[in-house]
Amino acid sequence: MKEIGVAVIGTRFMGRAHANAFRQARAFFDPPLLPRLVVACGREEVRLTEFARRFGFEHTATDWREAIAREDVSLVDICGPNHLHAEIAAAAAAAGKAVLCEKPLARDLAEAQGMLQAVAGAGVPHMVCFNYRFFPALRLARELIRDGALGEIRQYHALYLQDWGLDPGLPLTWRMRKELAGSGALGDTAVHVVDLARFLVGEIAEVCGMLTTFIKQRPLPNGAGLGEVTVDDTAAFLARFTSGATGVFETTRVAAGRKNFMHLEVNGTRGSVRWNAEDPNVLEFYSLDDPPRVRGFRRIVVTEREHPWAGNWWPPGHGLGYEHSFVHAACELLTAIGEGRPPVPSFRDGVAAQAVLEAVARSAAERRWLPVHP
Amino acid sequence: MKEIGVAVIGTRFMGRAHANAFRQARAFFDPPLLPRLVVACGREEVRLTEFARRFGFEHTATDWREAIAREDVSLVDICGPNHLHAEIAAAAAAAGKAVLCEKPLARDLAEAQGMLQAVAGAGVPHMVCFNYRFFPALRLARELIRDGALGEIRQYHALYLQDWGLDPGLPLTWRMRKELAGSGALGDTAVHVVDLARFLVGEIAEVCGMLTTFIKQRPLPNGAGLGEVTVDDTAAFLARFTSGATGVFETTRVAAGRKNFMHLEVNGTRGSVRWNAEDPNVLEFYSLDDPPRVRGFRRIVVTEREHPWAGNWWPPGHGLGYEHSFVHAACELLTAIGEGRPPVPSFRDGVAAQAVLEAVARSAAERRWLPVHP
Amino acid sequence: MKEIGVAVIGTRFMGRAHANAFRQARAFFDPPLLPRLVVACGREEVRLTEFARRFGFEHTATDWREAIAREDVSLVDICGPNHLHAEIAAAAAAAGKAVLCEKPLARDLAEAQGMLQAVAGAGVPHMVCFNYRFFPALRLARELIRDGALGEIRQYHALYLQDWGLDPGLPLTWRMRKELAGSGALGDTAVHVVDLARFLVGEIAEVCGMLTTFIKQRPLPNGAGLGEVTVDDTAAFLARFTSGATGVFETTRVAAGRKNFMHLEVNGTRGSVRWNAEDPNVLEFYSLDDPPRVRGFRRIVVTEREHPWAGNWWPPGHGLGYEHSFVHAACELLTAIGEGRPPVPSFRDGVAAQAVLEAVARSAAERRWLPVHP
Amino acid sequence: MKEIGVAVIGTRFMGRAHANAFRQARAFFDPPLLPRLVVACGREEVRLTEFARRFGFEHTATDWREAIAREDVSLVDICGPNHLHAEIAAAAAAAGKAVLCEKPLARDLAEAQGMLQAVAGAGVPHMVCFNYRFFPALRLARELIRDGALGEIRQYHALYLQDWGLDPGLPLTWRMRKELAGSGALGDTAVHVVDLARFLVGEIAEVCGMLTTFIKQRPLPNGAGLGEVTVDDTAAFLARFTSGATGVFETTRVAAGRKNFMHLEVNGTRGSVRWNAEDPNVLEFYSLDDPPRVRGFRRIVVTEREHPWAGNWWPPGHGLGYEHSFVHAACELLTAIGEGRPPVPSFRDGVAAQAVLEAVARSAAERRWLPVHP
Repeated sequence: MKEIGVAVIGTRFMGRAHANAFRQARAFFDPPLLPRLVVACGREEVRLTEFARRFGFEHTATDWREAIAREDVSLVDICGPNHLHAEIAAAAAAAGKAVLCEKPLARDLAEAQGMLQAVAGAGVPHMVCFNYRFFPALRLARELIRDGALGEIRQYHALYLQDWGLDPGLPLTWRMRKELAGSGALGDTAVHVVDLARFLVGEIAEVCGMLTTFIKQRPLPNGAGLGEVTVDDTAAFLARFTSGATGVFETTRVAAGRKNFMHLEVNGTRGSVRWNAEDPNVLEFYSLDDPPRVRGFRRIVVTEREHPWAGNWWPPGHGLGYEHSFVHAACELLTAIGEGRPPVPSFRDGVAAQAVLEAVARSAAERRWLPVHP
Repeated sequence: MKEIGVAVIGTRFMGRAHANAFRQARAFFDPPLLPRLVVACGREEVRLTEFARRFGFEHTATDWREAIAREDVSLVDICGPNHLHAEIAAAAAAAGKAVLCEKPLARDLAEAQGMLQAVAGAGVPHMVCFNYRFFPALRLARELIRDGALGEIRQYHALYLQDWGLDPGLPLTWRMRKELAGSGALGDTAVHVVDLARFLVGEIAEVCGMLTTFIKQRPLPNGAGLGEVTVDDTAAFLARFTSGATGVFETTRVAAGRKNFMHLEVNGTRGSVRWNAEDPNVLEFYSLDDPPRVRGFRRIVVTEREHPWAGNWWPPGHGLGYEHSFVHAACELLTAIGEGRPPVPSFRDGVAAQAVLEAVARSAAERRWLPVHP
Repeated sequence: MKEIGVAVIGTRFMGRAHANAFRQARAFFDPPLLPRLVVACGREEVRLTEFARRFGFEHTATDWREAIAREDVSLVDICGPNHLHAEIAAAAAAAGKAVLCEKPLARDLAEAQGMLQAVAGAGVPHMVCFNYRFFPALRLARELIRDGALGEIRQYHALYLQDWGLDPGLPLTWRMRKELAGSGALGDTAVHVVDLARFLVGEIAEVCGMLTTFIKQRPLPNGAGLGEVTVDDTAAFLARFTSGATGVFETTRVAAGRKNFMHLEVNGTRGSVRWNAEDPNVLEFYSLDDPPRVRGFRRIVVTEREHPWAGNWWPPGHGLGYEHSFVHAACELLTAIGEGRPPVPSFRDGVAAQAVLEAVARSAAERRWLPVHP
Repeated sequence: MKEIGVAVIGTRFMGRAHANAFRQARAFFDPPLLPRLVVACGREEVRLTEFARRFGFEHTATDWREAIAREDVSLVDICGPNHLHAEIAAAAAAAGKAVLCEKPLARDLAEAQGMLQAVAGAGVPHMVCFNYRFFPALRLARELIRDGALGEIRQYHALYLQDWGLDPGLPLTWRMRKELAGSGALGDTAVHVVDLARFLVGEIAEVCGMLTTFIKQRPLPNGAGLGEVTVDDTAAFLARFTSGATGVFETTRVAAGRKNFMHLEVNGTRGSVRWNAEDPNVLEFYSLDDPPRVRGFRRIVVTEREHPWAGNWWPPGHGLGYEHSFVHAACELLTAIGEGRPPVPSFRDGVAAQAVLEAVARSAAERRWLPVHP
C-alpha cells in the first residue's frame, strides 16, 4: 500500500473535520494513496496533544513551518483562520508539498490569485475544500444536470441561513474581523453556494450585492469592553451567469432558528432539483419527462449503490452526516494525486469563487451591478 | 336545467358540509341535475333559521317527517346523529326519495343491513358519504392502482389520529354514547380508512381488534356530574384482505397534537402511494418503473387539469380544502341519479364497512381473529 | 339583514374567485352587509350567462358602464385585465360606488396614483385584493410579529415560483404584453410578496432589481405566427426596508415543477416564521423564548378556534384552500363598509406596492439601486 | 490512558458499524477505557484481512474461539449471524470477557435466556446493541418523557418499513432461514421498535400478532434452484403495555420505496413526539404547555450543545448519520465497564425484547392475544 504523509494545520472545527476525513477515507474507501497522519499543528499545546491523540497523529508541532519542513510530509492541509492561508500555502508549495486548503481560499481576490500562482508555479497538486460538492445528493444533482435531465438551466436560488451569530453576547472572534477573515457571512457561507452555483450551473458573469452588519459591536474575547465587527453578518446578491441564467443568493449568521439551512434550487427547461443541507441525504428532482398526471418532485434518498460514494458506506436508507462530505473530498484529493491528475475543485475554483465574492463586495459598496473578473 | 329538490337533515358540522357541497356543485360543476336546497331540518329553531338563511334553503322544518313528505323534495340527505340514520332512511325510501347518508351508515351491522334493504327494496338511489374517496389525490391513487402502477397490492397502513377528545373536561355528547353512536373512534374515524381500504385495496376477509377507552367518564352536558363514556376513544386492528394483502389500522381521538392526521400508505409489488389529510392536495407516489438512480417518492400536487375534478376549480397549485371532497361527492350523486345509474359509494359500501367495524368490535371483545361477514 | 348590491366585472379566474367569495361570505360569516350578486359583467355572452347562472347573479351586462350605472349596485368589483382597472375604477368612483380591485392595482405607478385620487376624491370605500393577507396562517404571522414574538425584524425572504409559462407553445395572452399588463411576473406574482413584505415587515426604502424574459416570443392567439413577449417572466430584487431590515425577492413563471410555490420567511431578533402557499394551513414559528433543548420550528396547523377566521369553517385540522382567502377579504370589505371605516388593504396599499414594482423595474433598467418613491 | 482490548467477530454490515464505532469513540469522546482493536474475526480470509487493515485491527483470526482466548482481549463483540450469538456469548462469558452482542440477542426466547444466564452467571459486563436508543433525537425523546413533558403515555405507534427484500430474485441468505435467523422482519427490524417501545413507554404486557411471508421462495445462493423462505418478511402486532398504553407495530422488508423508514410516534396526556429514521437528526415535539395559538409539532434539530452527545461532534445543524448511533453505544459500554456499573441496554433488555417477539410469533400462530412472559 502506498502512503502519503499528511500535516494538518488547525485543530478546531475544520481541523477535526479534515483529520477525521483522512482516517475514514482509509477505513471506507480505497484511494491509491493511503493517508498517514504524520503531524498535527496548532498553537495551544494541551489542545494539540489531545487532538493528535484522538485522531492518531504521529507527531505534533506548534510551528507550522516545522510541520511543513518534515520530509515525511507530502501533503499540507490548511485548516487555520483565513489570514494564514496564503503564507502557509506558499511555503508548502515552495517545499514541493501538495496543498489542501479550507475555504474561502483567501481574504480577497489578490491574495487568492497569489496562492494559485504559488502552487501552480511550484507544480504541486492543490485543492480547495468545497466540501458540499461531495455530498452524494449534490453530486447526483450535478450528474443529472450534466446528462441533460434538467434541460437548459435558467435559474439558481440559494438561501444559506445560520443563527450562530444571533446572540449579541457572542465574543468578537477572527470570523468577525476583516483583517483576519476577509469578509463575514460572504466568505464563510456564501462562498459555498457560489461554488455550488459554478459546479451546477456555470460561471457567473455579473453580480449586484448587499452586505449588512446587524450586530456592529461585540464583546472582546479578553473582556476589555466591546470591539467593532468589521465584516458582514448578512449578504445577498443577484447574479447573471454567462449562460444567461439568473441567480439569487442570500446568506446570514443571524436568522433565528436556522442552524445550517442551505436551501438550493435549480430550474431548467426540462426539470428542477432542490436540496437542503438539513436533510442532506435527499435530492428532490422534478422532470417534465414524467407523464403529466404523476409529475412531482421526487424525494430521492441518495443512499443506493447507484449513487455517488453511497455504496462504500451502509445499506440504502442508512443516511450519512455532514462529516462524510469531507471524507469524499479527501478521497478525491488522494485519488487525483495518486493518479497524477489535478484534483477538483482546485485553487482555480477557489480563485473563481473569490472573484465572485470580491465583485459582490465591491458592488455592495458601489451600489450597482459589476462584472466578475476572474 | 333540470333540478332536484333536496332536504338536508342536520345543521351542524355535517349539515353545513353537505349544504355547502350542493351549493358549490352548482357553481363549479355541471351535474345533469342541479340541486335545489328546498328544506333544512333541525330541532333548534334559531340555529335552523340561521342555517337555512346562510345556505339559501327555501324552507325549514323541525320535524324530519315533514321534510321528507314534501313533494318538492326528491333527495333526502341525512346528516344527523347515527341513531337517527335508520329510521329516516327507511322513511325516505318508503316515500320514494333518493337517500344520501353520512357515515357510519348505522350503529351496527344489522341496522345498516336493514337500511340497505329499505333503499334497495324501494328501488331508490342511495349513497353513503365516504367523502375521502372524493379528494383528488386519493382518486388519483385509486386510478394508479387500478391501472397497475403499483403492481399487486400487498400492504395497507392507516393511521387516523385526532385529539379533540383529549380534554377530559369535554362534555359527554352523543358521539361518546354507544346507544346513540354505535361506537366511538371506530365508527367515526376508522370507518373512513376502512372504506378507503376497500376503495384502494379490496375486501377485508378477517380482522383482529383492540378497543380502548382512555377517558372513561366525562361531564354531563346538563352539568349534573359525570357520565360514563360507553364507546372507544381509540381503536386499532390488524386485517387480512381476501387478496392476501395485510392491513394495519389505528385511529384515536386523544393523540395530542393530531388534528385530522389521516396517514395512508399502500405498498405494492411495483410501487407505493402515501397520502396525509393534513396536506390533502398531495399524493406521494413511488414507482419501480423509474430508473434506479432517480427513484423516490414523488410529491404530486394533484391540482392539474389531468387530475380528477381539479380542472373545475383553480389553476395548478391553488389547492383545495376539506370541504371540496363533499362537493365532488355531491356531483357523483347528482350525476348518477341524473344518468339513472347507482351512485358510488352506495349503502352496500356502507354495509360492507359496517361489517368490518362489527367484526373488529367483536374480535376485540373475544380477543381473537374473526372473519368479516358481509 | 342589510344588503349591498355587487357588480363583478370579469368572469375568468379572478371573477370566479370573487363571485365565490361573496357567496361564501354570506354562508359562513356574518358581515354587517350581506352581498347581493346583482350583475355579472363580461364580453363573451355565452360564458357570461353560464357564469351568472353558476354563482346566482341576478343580471348580466356585456358593457361594464351599464353594470356600474345600475342603481342597485353599490360595490364594483374589478376582476378584468390590468389595463381596464383605472378606467373602471374612476367611473365607479365617479358614480359613488365602493370599489374592490384585483392586483396589481394598475399597469404603473402613475396610473395607480390616479386611481387612488379618483376613489379618495370621490370619498368612496376602496380596497385592493391582496388576498394572501387573508390566509389564516399569514394573519397569525402578522399577529405574532405585531405582538413582538419575533423581536425586531431583520430579514424577509420571498420566493414565489410558478411554471405555467414554461411551455413555449403557450399563446401570447394579455399577461405577456406590457401595454395590457404593465409588467409580467413582477406585477402578477411579485406584487403579492411585496404586499406581504409591507404587511409583515413595513415599508421598503430602496431596491435593486433584475428582470428577465427567458421566452421572448410566443404564438399569437389568432394563429398568425409569433408575437413578442414584452414583459418579464422572471423578476428578482434586493431590498432595504426603512427599518433597516433586508429583503430578498424572487418570482418566476418558468420554474419547472413549481405550481404556486410562495415561500416566505421572516427572521427577527427573537424568532422566525415561515409559510408556503403549497401547504397554506400551516405556519412555522421558531421562538427563542422556548427552552433551548426544545427549540424548533413549530408546525402550527392554523385551523383552531384561536386562529383568524378558522372558527367559522370546520373543526381543527380540516384545512382550507386557496379560495378561502378571498372569502375573508370579502368579509373585511363588507365589514369595513358596514362599519363606515376604511377597508384594509386599500388603494393606498395598492399604490405603495406599485411604487416598489416601479422602482424595481427602473432599477433593473438602470442597473443600480433606486429609492422607492411612494 | 487505560485501554481495553476488543475482538470484533463479523466483518460485514454490523462488523463494520462496530469497528467504526470503537474507532470513532476514541476520536470524538473520552470514555474512561479506550478501545484497542486487537483482533478481527471472520471466515473469509481475504475479506478479513482487508477489514482488519481498514479499521486498524492488530490481528486477525478465522476461528472465533481463538479470538476469545487471547489474553489481550477483554471485550468480545458479536456481529455474526444470529445462530452464532449464543455459543460465542457463552464462550466469551466463560472466559471472563465482557460481551457486546448485536440484536436480536438470539433466535428465540429460550436461547436468549440461556445467554443472559451465561453472562450473569459469569459476572461479566454485557450489552445488546439496540443502537437506536443512541440517536440523539430519540434520547431527547426519552428525556422529555422521563421529565413528564408528555404527561402519561397512552399510545405508541411504530412503522418500520424497508424494501430490500422486494426483488424476488434476491438470493436466500441466512436472514431468510428460520434455523439461522430465528425469525425474519420480526427479529431483524421489529425488534428495534420493540426495544424503543420499552425504552420510551415501558413493559409490554400482551400482544396479538400477524406474520406474513409474501415471497415464499428465493434462489439458492449456490444457484441450485429455489429454496424456501422460512421466516416472515412482514410482521405486525397490537400490544397493550402494563401501564395500559396501547401499541401498534408494523415492519416489513417489502414496502416499495421505503429504505429505512422507521416512523415512531408517542402520544401522552400532555404532548407527543415523533421521529423518523430517514430524517434522524430531528425530533418532532408537541406540547399542551404552549399557548393555544402557537401549538404545533416543533421540528427540533437535535444538534445543539444541550442535546445528548451532539456537543462532541459538529456545530449546530451539521447533522449526524446512521453510524453515529453505534459510536454512542460504544461509549456507553466503555464508560459502564470503566465505571464498574452495568451497561444499558443489557442482555436483560435483549431477553425482554425477545420475549415480546416470541409472544408475537406464538400469537400469530394461535390467532389470539397472548401475554408476554419475560
